[in-house]
Amino acid sequence: MTPTPAGLDSNRRLISADKVEGTAVYNRAGDRLGTIEDVMIDKISGRVAFAVMSFGGFLGMGENHHPLPWSVLTYDTAKGGYVVDLTREQLEGAPSYAAAENVDLSDTHGRRVYDYYKAQPFWLDVA
Amino acid sequence: MTPTPAGLDSNRRLISADKVEGTAVYNRAGDRLGTIEDVMIDKISGRVAFAVMSFGGFLGMGENHHPLPWSVLTYDTAKGGYVVDLTREQLEGAPSYAAAENVDLSDTHGRRVYDYYKAQPFWLDVA
Repeated sequence: MTPTPAGLDSNRRLISADKVEGTAVYNRAGDRLGTIEDVMIDKISGRVAFAVMSFGGFLGMGENHHPLPWSVLTYDTAKGGYVVDLTREQLEGAPSYAAAENVDLSDTHGRRVYDYYKAQPFWLDVA
Repeated sequence: MTPTPAGLDSNRRLISADKVEGTAVYNRAGDRLGTIEDVMIDKISGRVAFAVMSFGGFLGMGENHHPLPWSVLTYDTAKGGYVVDLTREQLEGAPSYAAAENVDLSDTHGRRVYDYYKAQPFWLDVA
């Protein structure tokens, strides 16, 4: 279960959650925003609800977790990481929580994240 | 990223991939069939395509990986693990591969698994 570079499997349609975890996240300007720490799965639909990016040590803040809808992540083989269309300032305004908080993302916290990223909430297109 | 018992989050709709990994799998008779080793995500749809169960040391065979469609797993809080409707004999007949093989489940191998478990292939209901 050791994370390996996600790019290794980039020609395949499926990717191991273990490979997603540990992968870097950049913005379009090339700034490294953080690293995918965890993948949250919706038990009912079997969809990835969030990829949780950790982001920390910035301007002295502690480590924060930024849940990102799966659909906002694009894998960039050249960078060897995911790219999101987000400036550092937008990231600071995005819903986040302290790593130790253990927030329940299945409720209003999760909806707030989907609203922020203007992504289609996964729980609305489940049969 | 240390696996913790999946039951801890059992009242929530979302579960961490890290918690799924390491969780035991039983059949209806209560036999322990194996342990979830990995979660394979379809990059395009963001769906969990397979939970890969490891199963080994049985009758002298090496460790095998049994990919299971997410929909065949039911979490049983009493057992603290997943239950699948599968006898040991059915499991031995199920598509599996040696742990070291690194099989691409996005192609015919994956379809064979869905056919075996009579599950709806995830790639047919993606827009």
